Amino acid sequence: MAVSNLEYPAVRTFTAKGLATRERIVVAASSLMLEHGVDAAKLEDIQAEARVSASQLYHYFEDKSALILAVIDHQTDAVLGMHRQILVRLDSFTALQEWRDLIVASIESNQCVGGCPLGSLASGLAESDPLARAALAKSFAEWQRMLRVGLETMRDHGELRADIDAESLSLSILASVQGGLLLSQTRRDSDAVRASVDMAIAYLKTLR
Amino acid sequence: MAVSNLEYPAVRTFTAKGLATRERIVVAASSLMLEHGVDAAKLEDIQAEARVSASQLYHYFEDKSALILAVIDHQTDAVLGMHRQILVRLDSFTALQEWRDLIVASIESNQCVGGCPLGSLASGLAESDPLARAALAKSFAEWQRMLRVGLETMRDHGELRADIDAESLSLSILASVQGGLLLSQTRRDSDAVRASVDMAIAYLKTLR
Repeated sequence: MAVSNLEYPAVRTFTAKGLATRERIVVAASSLMLEHGVDAAKLEDIQAEARVSASQLYHYFEDKSALILAVIDHQTDAVLGMHRQILVRLDSFTALQEWRDLIVASIESNQCVGGCPLGSLASGLAESDPLARAALAKSFAEWQRMLRVGLETMRDHGELRADIDAESLSLSILASVQGGLLLSQTRRDSDAVRASVDMAIAYLKTLR
Repeated sequence: MAVSNLEYPAVRTFTAKGLATRERIVVAASSLMLEHGVDAAKLEDIQAEARVSASQLYHYFEDKSALILAVIDHQTDAVLGMHRQILVRLDSFTALQEWRDLIVASIESNQCVGGCPLGSLASGLAESDPLARAALAKSFAEWQRMLRVGLETMRDHGELRADIDAESLSLSILASVQGGLLLSQTRRDSDAVRASVDMAIAYLKTLR
């Protein structure tokens, strides 16, 4: 479920074939925007990559801004969908360690190329596209919420102290993940994200 | 001293007037690249902003790649220069708190617009420009080095345990700063960077 769909123009009703075409455009746009930057990804290149005509593209997206919001939804579904699988059952330090391993394995499987798709989109769009910035803030808020609920569950299971500030902790941990992924992307090694997430977990362990 | 100058083509020798013109071009390019993205900042716009002709611009920078490296040097000098003022005398938790306050005041004075210039450039250039990525990795390494030396000084002054891993801690703290700034930029409030740097400091306090 894409968070930003809640407040932005809903996807119109398309046929199954139409939805498949729309999805092909969004996947092509995501790929080009993350590889070359949002501005460098030209509509003509997206058309070519998705094998659609200009009129088909404009049938689904009235302008590039609409396409950018669809890319944010798409990446939000992908990234949060992956993290949700572990965060939804976060109730112990063992599960927290599994989540940490997922983050490390995910960036290592790409040789640290690309960093976090949501972080990259946020950095590239925050100053140029207010709607995109707001949509990405919502995506981060949902990611943080999943983490917060997990920390609260750990607290309720007696794995963390009763007086933890789960709101602030979840925000800090998400920042550690984002900063670690950005430094790992820039350095092309996973040491940064390993160190930063491990520090966050080590701090949580002092709150047992 | 710009870190990336150590390994990339050195600035040629220009007259004082020439250096001033070159600086005007770099400042204009920095401003446009950070506001609109590196790719969206066109050479014609940079010329107009810096009030120079195309031939003047090409006299100083043979292509956009050379200009991008100069912008990275410029922002590295600006960002690290500001942080160095406190990090160079980092020897206690009091000084560490001053550094934290500098980070928060710095982003709040911009209403959280722009995030970290080095983080934004890294996110925008890491996949499209290998030389820029390497230059930014060096900038982050120098930033981390300053922080590591400060943690080692704190350790030598008995403010931190003798067995701390200053290398890993400095990398984690830099990640907390970068992730906090990115989330604060996206959310347009300083809560994220406050929470993330405060968590890093709280963890360090468990290592006293």
